[in-house]
Amino acid sequence: MKLDTKILQDTKTLQETMLEATKAASKITLPLFRSSLVIENKLKQGFDPVTKADRDAEQKIREVIERAYPSHSIFGEELDDKITNNPYAWVIDPIDGTRAFISGLPTWGTLIGLLDDKTAIAGLMSQPFTGEIFIATGKKAEYIYQGKITPLISSTTKNLSEAIMFTTTPALFAKPTQRAAYDEIEGKVRLARYGVDCYAYALLAMGQIDLIIEPDLKQCDIAPLIAIIENSGAVVSTWNKKSAHNGGNIIAAATPELLNEALDILDRYLRD
Amino acid sequence: MKLDTKILQDTKTLQETMLEATKAASKITLPLFRSSLVIENKLKQGFDPVTKADRDAEQKIREVIERAYPSHSIFGEELDDKITNNPYAWVIDPIDGTRAFISGLPTWGTLIGLLDDKTAIAGLMSQPFTGEIFIATGKKAEYIYQGKITPLISSTTKNLSEAIMFTTTPALFAKPTQRAAYDEIEGKVRLARYGVDCYAYALLAMGQIDLIIEPDLKQCDIAPLIAIIENSGAVVSTWNKKSAHNGGNIIAAATPELLNEALDILDRYLRD
Repeated sequence: MKLDTKILQDTKTLQETMLEATKAASKITLPLFRSSLVIENKLKQGFDPVTKADRDAEQKIREVIERAYPSHSIFGEELDDKITNNPYAWVIDPIDGTRAFISGLPTWGTLIGLLDDKTAIAGLMSQPFTGEIFIATGKKAEYIYQGKITPLISSTTKNLSEAIMFTTTPALFAKPTQRAAYDEIEGKVRLARYGVDCYAYALLAMGQIDLIIEPDLKQCDIAPLIAIIENSGAVVSTWNKKSAHNGGNIIAAATPELLNEALDILDRYLRD
Repeated sequence: MKLDTKILQDTKTLQETMLEATKAASKITLPLFRSSLVIENKLKQGFDPVTKADRDAEQKIREVIERAYPSHSIFGEELDDKITNNPYAWVIDPIDGTRAFISGLPTWGTLIGLLDDKTAIAGLMSQPFTGEIFIATGKKAEYIYQGKITPLISSTTKNLSEAIMFTTTPALFAKPTQRAAYDEIEGKVRLARYGVDCYAYALLAMGQIDLIIEPDLKQCDIAPLIAIIENSGAVVSTWNKKSAHNGGNIIAAATPELLNEALDILDRYLRD
């Protein structure tokens, strides 16, 4: 975490802007959740649905951010990037977990994050149906639920044999060496579960689960979550130990020891 | 559905008993959700956690049922069966989805169902964290959320190519022919998702998803859900078209046409 950045001198405005933005987005997404939706296929191969909710919610989030911070860059999943000379850049995913969204499952989330140059300095994940908010600014990571604020603290799990691990689906480990590495790690953990996108990172920050390994994430899938993860005490990086802010092959763990045990296995397969 | 059964002459008492039972269970389960738990390994191989929440909640559910219907049989997941001469038998799973429960994921549920001889005549699934209740008695299946009651109506999806399918994890299809059959079906559906136990059947009844295929379910995993599924308009059976009330290899679909398309594929693999 970068703490000497100017914007963190006013975390109140920062926090209020993120909360206002996600509230505006929820007014779009929540009424469309579990309703009939016009679903388009973003990719001709496979199934990557984009909904009206997704685009309209991003527009609302951008409006709130632009009002508070007109000179900042904005990178969203749905609309064109706004690129300025300012080192502050917002990264937005209005509906992370669109597959959960269209299945009626309340494990999707709205992601809003802030980078200073290439370092995550604030982030928010909200689940409008459950009303849960996970937010990080400065040194804090907090859980807001039913009007109560509690600190997010990751678990102290240090070994794969004790770890609960999540990934969206093993099918995403498309390369045989990736899949072999994943399978070896899955064979060592206490419990492996599939399918909850951003909600898994929120559960990691909450100390409920211990490890997440995913290939090929986009920037908007992970950048908004970095401050939440790191301020809870957990760690996140790419599989080759670089910063996660640009996306890519991502690993997040409750402790550095657990991260390293998993990275050693990934390293062994991916070196070849 | 069996509608000439005596107990359905008083669906009010039946519904109130189920709601009171799940409310009593929630008072045990919800405070332990996302808290530290003593987790035991039910099986020496694999990972089948039983929590204190699970046992205590079942005890509470049994107390409520025994007060209302002292002569009925009761089959629970955790405690000894109560077997009487009465044809009415309750089937209880206090925490279906214990893996979700211990991961902090709000997709587990409390299941309470009633069989007359071998026919499901009532059932309830509740998710205490979200406050959602799915309940069926007589001819009705309803969703209770934030004080509002709405009918549960399954989708009209008739073809695999349009279907959203759920299964807990493909890894449960342990036999190679089972796995091959599952994989062929997964290759044909619009979207396949993993990992939400009873919540998937609730989403099927809600018309959000279209198909669920799972091997080796216990009676308590499925019997309480049958009335909810059937009264929403959806269908459920074993893979060889027998009643699902005893558990086994289960398939549930939004329409008979969709069920048959999937069963034809299962049949082709499992006949050999």
